[in-house]
Amino acid sequence: MTDTIRWGMVGGGLNGFIGEVHRLAARLDGGFALVAGCFSSDAARNRESAGQVGVAPDRVYDDFAQMARSEAERPDGIRAVSIVTPNHLHFPAARAFLEAGIDVICDKPLTTTLEEALELESLAREQGRILAVTYNYTGNAMIRLARSLVAEGALGDLRLVQVEYLQDWLARNIEQEGQKQASWRTDPQQAGRAGCLGDIGVHAYNLAHFVTGLPARRVSADLATFVPGRRVDDNVQVTLDFGNGTRGALWASQVAVGSENALRLRLVGSRASIAWEQEHPNQLRYAEYGEAPRTLSRNGAGFPPSLQRFCRVPAGHPEGYLEAFANLYGEIRRGLLTGQGDFTDVADAVDDMAFIEACLASNDNDNRWQPLMR
Amino acid sequence: MTDTIRWGMVGGGLNGFIGEVHRLAARLDGGFALVAGCFSSDAARNRESAGQVGVAPDRVYDDFAQMARSEAERPDGIRAVSIVTPNHLHFPAARAFLEAGIDVICDKPLTTTLEEALELESLAREQGRILAVTYNYTGNAMIRLARSLVAEGALGDLRLVQVEYLQDWLARNIEQEGQKQASWRTDPQQAGRAGCLGDIGVHAYNLAHFVTGLPARRVSADLATFVPGRRVDDNVQVTLDFGNGTRGALWASQVAVGSENALRLRLVGSRASIAWEQEHPNQLRYAEYGEAPRTLSRNGAGFPPSLQRFCRVPAGHPEGYLEAFANLYGEIRRGLLTGQGDFTDVADAVDDMAFIEACLASNDNDNRWQPLMR
Amino acid sequence: MTDTIRWGMVGGGLNGFIGEVHRLAARLDGGFALVAGCFSSDAARNRESAGQVGVAPDRVYDDFAQMARSEAERPDGIRAVSIVTPNHLHFPAARAFLEAGIDVICDKPLTTTLEEALELESLAREQGRILAVTYNYTGNAMIRLARSLVAEGALGDLRLVQVEYLQDWLARNIEQEGQKQASWRTDPQQAGRAGCLGDIGVHAYNLAHFVTGLPARRVSADLATFVPGRRVDDNVQVTLDFGNGTRGALWASQVAVGSENALRLRLVGSRASIAWEQEHPNQLRYAEYGEAPRTLSRNGAGFPPSLQRFCRVPAGHPEGYLEAFANLYGEIRRGLLTGQGDFTDVADAVDDMAFIEACLASNDNDNRWQPLMR
Amino acid sequence: MTDTIRWGMVGGGLNGFIGEVHRLAARLDGGFALVAGCFSSDAARNRESAGQVGVAPDRVYDDFAQMARSEAERPDGIRAVSIVTPNHLHFPAARAFLEAGIDVICDKPLTTTLEEALELESLAREQGRILAVTYNYTGNAMIRLARSLVAEGALGDLRLVQVEYLQDWLARNIEQEGQKQASWRTDPQQAGRAGCLGDIGVHAYNLAHFVTGLPARRVSADLATFVPGRRVDDNVQVTLDFGNGTRGALWASQVAVGSENALRLRLVGSRASIAWEQEHPNQLRYAEYGEAPRTLSRNGAGFPPSLQRFCRVPAGHPEGYLEAFANLYGEIRRGLLTGQGDFTDVADAVDDMAFIEACLASNDNDNRWQPLMR
Repeated sequence: MTDTIRWGMVGGGLNGFIGEVHRLAARLDGGFALVAGCFSSDAARNRESAGQVGVAPDRVYDDFAQMARSEAERPDGIRAVSIVTPNHLHFPAARAFLEAGIDVICDKPLTTTLEEALELESLAREQGRILAVTYNYTGNAMIRLARSLVAEGALGDLRLVQVEYLQDWLARNIEQEGQKQASWRTDPQQAGRAGCLGDIGVHAYNLAHFVTGLPARRVSADLATFVPGRRVDDNVQVTLDFGNGTRGALWASQVAVGSENALRLRLVGSRASIAWEQEHPNQLRYAEYGEAPRTLSRNGAGFPPSLQRFCRVPAGHPEGYLEAFANLYGEIRRGLLTGQGDFTDVADAVDDMAFIEACLASNDNDNRWQPLMR
Repeated sequence: MTDTIRWGMVGGGLNGFIGEVHRLAARLDGGFALVAGCFSSDAARNRESAGQVGVAPDRVYDDFAQMARSEAERPDGIRAVSIVTPNHLHFPAARAFLEAGIDVICDKPLTTTLEEALELESLAREQGRILAVTYNYTGNAMIRLARSLVAEGALGDLRLVQVEYLQDWLARNIEQEGQKQASWRTDPQQAGRAGCLGDIGVHAYNLAHFVTGLPARRVSADLATFVPGRRVDDNVQVTLDFGNGTRGALWASQVAVGSENALRLRLVGSRASIAWEQEHPNQLRYAEYGEAPRTLSRNGAGFPPSLQRFCRVPAGHPEGYLEAFANLYGEIRRGLLTGQGDFTDVADAVDDMAFIEACLASNDNDNRWQPLMR
Repeated sequence: MTDTIRWGMVGGGLNGFIGEVHRLAARLDGGFALVAGCFSSDAARNRESAGQVGVAPDRVYDDFAQMARSEAERPDGIRAVSIVTPNHLHFPAARAFLEAGIDVICDKPLTTTLEEALELESLAREQGRILAVTYNYTGNAMIRLARSLVAEGALGDLRLVQVEYLQDWLARNIEQEGQKQASWRTDPQQAGRAGCLGDIGVHAYNLAHFVTGLPARRVSADLATFVPGRRVDDNVQVTLDFGNGTRGALWASQVAVGSENALRLRLVGSRASIAWEQEHPNQLRYAEYGEAPRTLSRNGAGFPPSLQRFCRVPAGHPEGYLEAFANLYGEIRRGLLTGQGDFTDVADAVDDMAFIEACLASNDNDNRWQPLMR
Repeated sequence: MTDTIRWGMVGGGLNGFIGEVHRLAARLDGGFALVAGCFSSDAARNRESAGQVGVAPDRVYDDFAQMARSEAERPDGIRAVSIVTPNHLHFPAARAFLEAGIDVICDKPLTTTLEEALELESLAREQGRILAVTYNYTGNAMIRLARSLVAEGALGDLRLVQVEYLQDWLARNIEQEGQKQASWRTDPQQAGRAGCLGDIGVHAYNLAHFVTGLPARRVSADLATFVPGRRVDDNVQVTLDFGNGTRGALWASQVAVGSENALRLRLVGSRASIAWEQEHPNQLRYAEYGEAPRTLSRNGAGFPPSLQRFCRVPAGHPEGYLEAFANLYGEIRRGLLTGQGDFTDVADAVDDMAFIEACLASNDNDNRWQPLMR
């Protein structure tokens, strides 16, 4: 308990979604103490939010720049901060805390442009600070198992990487009805040029990258906007070339009526394939060539001891979204305390931004193959 | 945060299972502070466990009786205690805390005999204390939805209640290999006369009772012991009569090779049926007569606002075992703070014991119908 | 093609269900030529039915007794007859054809009483004729695989046999609305004393017997009638004892709202378990103790060559109800031509009747264990 | 029975696959009599095959051209012929029979080039003959239901069409081991330039076209060959633009380890979505925006009477691959007898060839959008 990390938060005021998720994840992990925050640009809401989450009044800040400076000066100042604002604020906030020498945990995507991401990468390197990006699905125990199977060659030569992420909450124009989550996510000023692509497409890409260890070399992408009046894409089809004979495809949609949060990853190798669905996250289908497919389960038969730390309860006792998120916080905590954390760091987050920009470029260029820039 | 409940624990030392689960659940709920404990009869392990969970040395006790007395006298003494020992200690520990005027949260089953349970029921009533029993699956949001559908008549006249709970971890004689969880659960001195019946059969029965609101009137039961050398049952088949034209069956097994923790409930009414599986707990199958069946989801389309408090994250973001357990702790907390909690209290826990005893009696009597006594 | 069997039918007039199924199955098998029939007690419908299925007018008979005599005398008379009438006519019709020296294929259950079944068994033995009973689900390729796995010991010692058969077409009193299939099945004069038990419960029992090779030794049964005004049971719960340490349960229901034709078999042994669902009949779940469960598929990886004859198309090309039925006709044809057919014969069909009678007796006797008589 | 169609076959000798499937389908349909054939270029096998399927020796032909001429001259000559050879023979054989005035049933794809397909289209029109192509999955009852739902507007504006067809039987180089089915399918001389694309990709495309009624306007395609030494593609990713705001993607693979015959179609509209999987063909997932998704079943609740003719048995009694194929034969028969058949005719089959050629062109041109030519 002495290793508890003093922790702050930017964004995450009442009635938001992702800030509370970060807090629940940290609480489930058990190694973070939320002691400072700048929860909202609305001063009253900021105070109220702080009160509800137990942050003392003198650690509540009107703006993140002030928070970074003040906390850096306090002897009991925060060790790390989580940034859970709309996308366009990730960059200035992360920069402020990195410059103040405070480790940063940032919600995805890291920034709204590749250029900003590269600048943060340089800054983090200069400052010697962690810049972790919370691609939470990478915290799932079965995703860790999948990555381990790929790494040990169980799949043989990796041939195909298919990933899809389907939601339907933007199937209608709810941003015009004032739905807060929808409003900023479909506003290019706040979300960036990529809509569905930047919100969940990048989740899908990052997951594929995380599990395979392979960044895409080039992409061919078709972005579509189905909902009249929407200013960003709400569906994206991407063909992927990972080089060395590995191909794939990515489909992300926020107009996929009948899908809640259907992130699904399938990998095919020369020896075996695996498939995972986020909505039933405790199972992994594993099929060897010439064998009947098997359903592996979290903490079940054959689950490797090396991945035990990503499990809290036995097989058959389902873990879910928050547990995966908490696992990620656990890894970030390990990174903060020992330097050995296993999570998406700034280098991979930069690659995610390169993916987004390449998709936009291909879409603008008759769907042609477009290399990922770095 | 001012409503945080000062909380103690009996049992739950390191390397145990259910104690850590109670702690995780309480932490996820966020309203309990663990400040006292008697975690193990082994003094060294008791101290070590306390240290790991952050209980101060002066609040660690060598025995639960002393703990009950001391905490009752302290001005900052615990408001409630969780008892997470093997079954045979539930009764004396619960009695000690109830007599000391401390509310009790007890793992299931309440006791090892109906007689003991009835005594605790009287005591809790006399003392005006809560005696909650953690039938954790009743905390699942979809189980709450199921109960709500039954209560509002969506199923019509309830005809059939089928429940099964299948595990395979006792398919071999691991108690002779020193597996701690197996050892006490298969020892009649610690677990009581009922083995599988008392460990998970009663979970299944309680769940059926909770969702339907109906206790069984009579049972016809066949208990079997498949594993050579085992001293308690490891499989039970029960035919159920709930009266008023509602029948059913229960199957619980701990030798069901290929099943991890497969608790499944199906209800059939004259108008509709529902089905739920604990291993995929965010869905509920709902089929109206003459209609295509629907898959309802936690927090999904049509999920009632009145049950929102059992959800932490949106539809498609799976919640699991710990979230359900945390929901139960949340209800117990509401009970402690407002008297309005919705959980299995001592009266229903007594009925669970009556169920166990009736099954044992039927099995001893040629499978004949046996009424539940109270 | 020279081995085509000259074949007749009793029952199976237009607008019936099972007669047409027998004809489709025989046609898919390809080894039967329908040349004679007594399709209906209504003379006009009898002629019309014959015309539609291509039976020549001189081979259409007003009653089955006359058909048996005439066909036995013709040099080109039928080799075998299928009896697809309501249950109460199975006995007299089967007797007539057996006495005439004609092999009999009878729909299930064989008769309406055990006594009749025993008489047919004697008669078939005296006459040296085949008396096959079309428990069609036993023709499914995966059921054959399941039986083969049990026989070769893949499951280890067989511990549990759980079978259920759920339908909902009798959830309301459609027999009073003149639905023909419902009318005779709920009329004790035509169906026998057992309703759901005799219609589908016996299917479930037979399937368990077929796959395990074990008849039940004793049963404890609860029959219920949920639909007001119905004269036979529409739901049955049976606890099963197969002797030698094998137990089980059977649930059959025709009021299970939301179930179409959900026959499901689960076997648990000391080494492995298997599970099969008729509505997805091309798969079989196979779980070895300590291994991740596998999904075996018809004609898929590891499917044994010895069972190839039960498959028409490759893995992934689903076969269904008619294919299973046709497989059974193929086995009966093999029996007729070579004496080597593998199907439910009269001895097992007698056991099915003993099961029905034991269930009725246990239900009449406070659910007590009741041995199967022979 | 008087309407039975005299029918011939080109290809389909012993040990082949698809010829026997056509014969089983026709037999299950019940309206075709196989009376002539040219089953193999090997004279001995041709005779032997004819004998096994019951074709008289004087109706067995050494080559299809002779067969077409002779049968056209006979008063009892065949009304229709099925061509079930490797792809490269479809064109000359179909031409021969069309020229002889005989209706043609051809396996897919129609030809190996768009040019040939267009020539056959002209010829069929001139001759006034049917040229049906057996895209068998379009015969499935639930596919018919899907098409009907789209047509009646249940999905609203159609936005997305996702189709995939995954197999793994070509995951290794079995063509070099002499596997007959693999050999011709991977030989550009026999199969055409498209490998996986022409074998199953076109099935997937045709299915999407059939259900939506929409041909693709343009495609962006990536063809890959994963297995060393293979001369044709074995995996294809296609992005689809159907015009009028409908987009989609198609993935076909014959190296998808762990997939048997996984054809899956998903359609998303502004009001609802549907999803169908060929390996579980009796169900269709239907999800309306804002409603819990439903599982529709063949012949189940709400199944439209107008589609009854595509069902042989009740809901819950699975139909499969052969039943769908037989339905298609039934529709072709209706076409032959009444002119009202509902099946893929030559016009749509020409569009399928245009799809193949556009994919090849896009793949050769940096994945750029490529319009379908006609």
